[in-house]
Amino acid sequence: MAIRMGIMGVGRIGRLHADHLSSRVPGAEITAICDVNQEAAREVADKLRVPRVYGDTAALCRSSEVDAVVICTSTNTHADLIEEAASAGKHIFCEKPIALDLERIDRAVAAADEANVKLQIGFNRRFDPGFAHVQAQVAGGVVGAPHLVRITSRDPQPPPAEYVKVSGGIFMDMTIHDFDMARFLVGSEPDRILATGGVRIDPAIGAAGDVDTAVVVIAHQDGTLTTIDNSRKAVYGYDQRVEVFGAQGVVWAENKTPHNTGHGDAAGMHRPQPQHFFMDRYIESFVAEMTAFVTSIASGEPAAVTGHDGRVPVVMAMAARRSMDEQRWVSMAEIA
Amino acid sequence: MAIRMGIMGVGRIGRLHADHLSSRVPGAEITAICDVNQEAAREVADKLRVPRVYGDTAALCRSSEVDAVVICTSTNTHADLIEEAASAGKHIFCEKPIALDLERIDRAVAAADEANVKLQIGFNRRFDPGFAHVQAQVAGGVVGAPHLVRITSRDPQPPPAEYVKVSGGIFMDMTIHDFDMARFLVGSEPDRILATGGVRIDPAIGAAGDVDTAVVVIAHQDGTLTTIDNSRKAVYGYDQRVEVFGAQGVVWAENKTPHNTGHGDAAGMHRPQPQHFFMDRYIESFVAEMTAFVTSIASGEPAAVTGHDGRVPVVMAMAARRSMDEQRWVSMAEIA
Amino acid sequence: MAIRMGIMGVGRIGRLHADHLSSRVPGAEITAICDVNQEAAREVADKLRVPRVYGDTAALCRSSEVDAVVICTSTNTHADLIEEAASAGKHIFCEKPIALDLERIDRAVAAADEANVKLQIGFNRRFDPGFAHVQAQVAGGVVGAPHLVRITSRDPQPPPAEYVKVSGGIFMDMTIHDFDMARFLVGSEPDRILATGGVRIDPAIGAAGDVDTAVVVIAHQDGTLTTIDNSRKAVYGYDQRVEVFGAQGVVWAENKTPHNTGHGDAAGMHRPQPQHFFMDRYIESFVAEMTAFVTSIASGEPAAVTGHDGRVPVVMAMAARRSMDEQRWVSMAEIA
Amino acid sequence: MAIRMGIMGVGRIGRLHADHLSSRVPGAEITAICDVNQEAAREVADKLRVPRVYGDTAALCRSSEVDAVVICTSTNTHADLIEEAASAGKHIFCEKPIALDLERIDRAVAAADEANVKLQIGFNRRFDPGFAHVQAQVAGGVVGAPHLVRITSRDPQPPPAEYVKVSGGIFMDMTIHDFDMARFLVGSEPDRILATGGVRIDPAIGAAGDVDTAVVVIAHQDGTLTTIDNSRKAVYGYDQRVEVFGAQGVVWAENKTPHNTGHGDAAGMHRPQPQHFFMDRYIESFVAEMTAFVTSIASGEPAAVTGHDGRVPVVMAMAARRSMDEQRWVSMAEIA
Repeated sequence: MAIRMGIMGVGRIGRLHADHLSSRVPGAEITAICDVNQEAAREVADKLRVPRVYGDTAALCRSSEVDAVVICTSTNTHADLIEEAASAGKHIFCEKPIALDLERIDRAVAAADEANVKLQIGFNRRFDPGFAHVQAQVAGGVVGAPHLVRITSRDPQPPPAEYVKVSGGIFMDMTIHDFDMARFLVGSEPDRILATGGVRIDPAIGAAGDVDTAVVVIAHQDGTLTTIDNSRKAVYGYDQRVEVFGAQGVVWAENKTPHNTGHGDAAGMHRPQPQHFFMDRYIESFVAEMTAFVTSIASGEPAAVTGHDGRVPVVMAMAARRSMDEQRWVSMAEIA
Repeated sequence: MAIRMGIMGVGRIGRLHADHLSSRVPGAEITAICDVNQEAAREVADKLRVPRVYGDTAALCRSSEVDAVVICTSTNTHADLIEEAASAGKHIFCEKPIALDLERIDRAVAAADEANVKLQIGFNRRFDPGFAHVQAQVAGGVVGAPHLVRITSRDPQPPPAEYVKVSGGIFMDMTIHDFDMARFLVGSEPDRILATGGVRIDPAIGAAGDVDTAVVVIAHQDGTLTTIDNSRKAVYGYDQRVEVFGAQGVVWAENKTPHNTGHGDAAGMHRPQPQHFFMDRYIESFVAEMTAFVTSIASGEPAAVTGHDGRVPVVMAMAARRSMDEQRWVSMAEIA
Repeated sequence: MAIRMGIMGVGRIGRLHADHLSSRVPGAEITAICDVNQEAAREVADKLRVPRVYGDTAALCRSSEVDAVVICTSTNTHADLIEEAASAGKHIFCEKPIALDLERIDRAVAAADEANVKLQIGFNRRFDPGFAHVQAQVAGGVVGAPHLVRITSRDPQPPPAEYVKVSGGIFMDMTIHDFDMARFLVGSEPDRILATGGVRIDPAIGAAGDVDTAVVVIAHQDGTLTTIDNSRKAVYGYDQRVEVFGAQGVVWAENKTPHNTGHGDAAGMHRPQPQHFFMDRYIESFVAEMTAFVTSIASGEPAAVTGHDGRVPVVMAMAARRSMDEQRWVSMAEIA
Repeated sequence: MAIRMGIMGVGRIGRLHADHLSSRVPGAEITAICDVNQEAAREVADKLRVPRVYGDTAALCRSSEVDAVVICTSTNTHADLIEEAASAGKHIFCEKPIALDLERIDRAVAAADEANVKLQIGFNRRFDPGFAHVQAQVAGGVVGAPHLVRITSRDPQPPPAEYVKVSGGIFMDMTIHDFDMARFLVGSEPDRILATGGVRIDPAIGAAGDVDTAVVVIAHQDGTLTTIDNSRKAVYGYDQRVEVFGAQGVVWAENKTPHNTGHGDAAGMHRPQPQHFFMDRYIESFVAEMTAFVTSIASGEPAAVTGHDGRVPVVMAMAARRSMDEQRWVSMAEIA
């Protein structure tokens, strides 16, 4: 018996999840699609042969043909929709972040807890085959106790300054994935954070009060030190690598390229660039996170990425911003 | 308006194509499924919401709701089904080989030509992202005139001797893909062939009259020399690589691994093995070949892999066998 | 006319330089060898057919058959010997560090300046073919303005705690090479430094007041951010890598292995470990730094690694230690 | 007590060996240098502080201060000098080939045997760290019984046609190293050989009666199949790789690059070319072969590359030429 899914929001990421749920995620079927733009909702529904289309989420939540919702609307609606879905007894997959406000996050997470529904947050990179393999190796003891972790996370193109203004800043918008990755790889909570950065790429980003180049150091509770380096613009592609060094060895994941080819000529030996577009780079992870969500509902096991997992990176982003502003270490306890 | 596909045969490869056509190939929909095992056909049809199920191909061919057929039945039926579909005016995708008999191939290809329908043969490896990139580089002049081509093609596990007996032999069963690859990469027809081999892995393969380890040299009409090496058993995985060396450089494709990770410990530095299973290794190629088929029908352009492309590798396999048996170069003209 | 070299100290590094000068450095000949252990000096002199053997450096400095000295004695003698050689008008190659005390460094450097002799400090890693290539690429504008630099520097084995006690600490003893590398690669002076670390490998190192695992962030004057990660024990070998990321691209140097081989079996694909011993890893750099020294004397060009280059990393090490102790950013101006 | 070496011929390779023997080969000293160009001999002797200079080899052979000779003169003198040195009781290192005539080879080898002196032939590639590692892995059983061997051997630049005319042809001049490598790696003698080739690079090479592009297949006595591909011109550098595939795995050696760096920009990811010049590419092998020679004299163990090892590749080259001319397999027994 397939889990019946309702999609909330059919922008870029909503369509992606809908495509995957309709064809690549076993055990799921989409029974309802909702978007304030009902025409967009209908277009997706037609393409995927989905029977129900809604223009408001409350109506979708009232449907008895929906077991779980996938929240892909804008960030400022996430917490409300989690609460709405929870009160209707629907399991919830919600894109990150839950909210930019800890108190709001806490209430939403509590609502899901109280309703006893699954809540999985969309930190898809945990499901990337390479990063998942690294985490499994670390968790399996292959490198011994982790000592040093390195996360390289560089975008191919900076966002428009307009977007930057409302993004919450580089730490909340971009590094948040790396904060989640650090927790995921190390398996120990952050204790304190040091961040620094600058405007090296686009002065408009600086004018918007943000930086485009940053370094973060995380001291975990177990003593592991994670370094993250971020840039909004890597001309050679989307640079996404991790390395975990420990007492018994090292394990790493390199970039993903469209194919494993090479070319040599009089000028040198050449290899493909990393994939540029995040949907190409992380396509398997999006399929796998949705599969994990559906599986956890079917099996009754806990969500793979919990509300707590959704909250901590927000705290880390706040700590990083404060650290950069005040040029000092900021402990997690200071923030929350 | 989607191209309406009928699937003939829902064994392993038929199911794979059906899955892809239902979800990953734009512009296609499956309107009919046929298998002598009607229960299997119905199961697939239910899963993919396909409206028509048939137990015989003639009935499928009579349906006005089918534009094109995908022939995934056993090899000995391919030529008959091509003729049946052609006479019904359906476009045809047929798994390789068309037949093991040149005269039979010629009649089937002629039938498709006369009916003016597309006929695409299932040499999927041409659509592998890595090999397709290499071919595009060569065709684009990046390495200049090709001089030397190298194709490594080693299976992870030998087939059972029972299968070997009916397989047509290593050259017809396994090297046939490499013969196609040589023509695809070089863009010049084979002129003569030298093959040699031995039984190094499984004496039962020798008892069945075949070899399990082989080397083939192809002299192309333009002077390019291709070497192929085959083994039925590479303990480290499915080893599938190509290299084209030419006047201006070299281009190559390495193996595909499940992820791009590494691991270092006191014993050494370790990387993942190539993927073992051909469906994992070549998954993108199966999607892409079907996309190319659907696109060629929609656009009216010629099939990407023609009946002629289906015929020549069979001749090459025959030449290789004769070369090995008689320990001499065999020209293509000798065979056909 | 060869430059006539006198070697001061024939411990491990002195013997290495002597070997290179006698056979692999063009334009040089060794005319004198000095060691407080005259037997050791004589043994090396015999092997390399060097005519003069001294038991004290003053005597060597008086010889008119010596143009330049190579100071390979213990660190606490470096500054005195620089002054002694400078006053005798000899050019000077001195192993790093000049001293652990800035005032002492300044006097020694001033002495060489006043005597108008070359003074080259033994930061050999600048001459490693890989790192030198990276620096040349950066200096040549290949990556545009540097934004982020990453230096991985992990030893294969921790030193004995006895050594740690007198080593000056990890930053002065080990990271000092990385501090030099950061300046060399970026081409902009450090502005402020953040360091943190812990005892993860050997409690005896902690008992000696030091750490064995550390992360350093350097904010350069031009805005570039360098991160360094250090460990005293990488079980897979001597891990020495750099990466420079900039506005127009990225350039990096990976580890050096004894050969470029691979091995695949049923357990995986395997590659060689990095070389473990620093003399194997950096052998070319030792030859090249001595060649650069001899060349600068012959050509009259400035030394490749100056007294100033010898001083700044000492300041950086002091800043790093203070940063770790006080858990804050420390500016270079605070120290000196 | 050092082995006292006499160098015969101080052309490019003679100087190289002399340099290595004077500084990088433990246990050796050069006591005499001989060249018909006495000025050249004297220049090298001065540089390396060698006491004796001769203009003819007979005089050198009469010297009681010489234990072993290194024959680096032109090929047509090798056999005579082996006999001359053998009759004087000197151990012999001789550059390959001994002669282009089997009968002449046989007499020279017999002379050394009868004189009970070491005779080591200059197949230096056996001592390349990568190839030596591959051979050791194979000999140690790491890949099980070898099944398929692949040798890629492509020069960076074709020789002048003048040289080609007197070179003995591509198989005798260039492939001869690969023939030796095949025997070395497999550890089983060749049984029959198939060669083919063409003129793809320089018509002047064709006019000189030779080919510039070739493929060779060797069937070894144990059933292993080796393929060699040769080109006189690889625009990306000196391409020297081997791969041994066997029942239990695969082991390979890739090209040697000047450093292990990379560079990514908007156009792609770039790596260094293989080294172009054979002396750079094989520098370690030249040191190691001379070290092995000196060691075998000191220890009394057999030479690492015997007269027999010098003879067989000449037979293989003859078989390859005949195979190409007559377009058929040629067995080793046919030639000798």
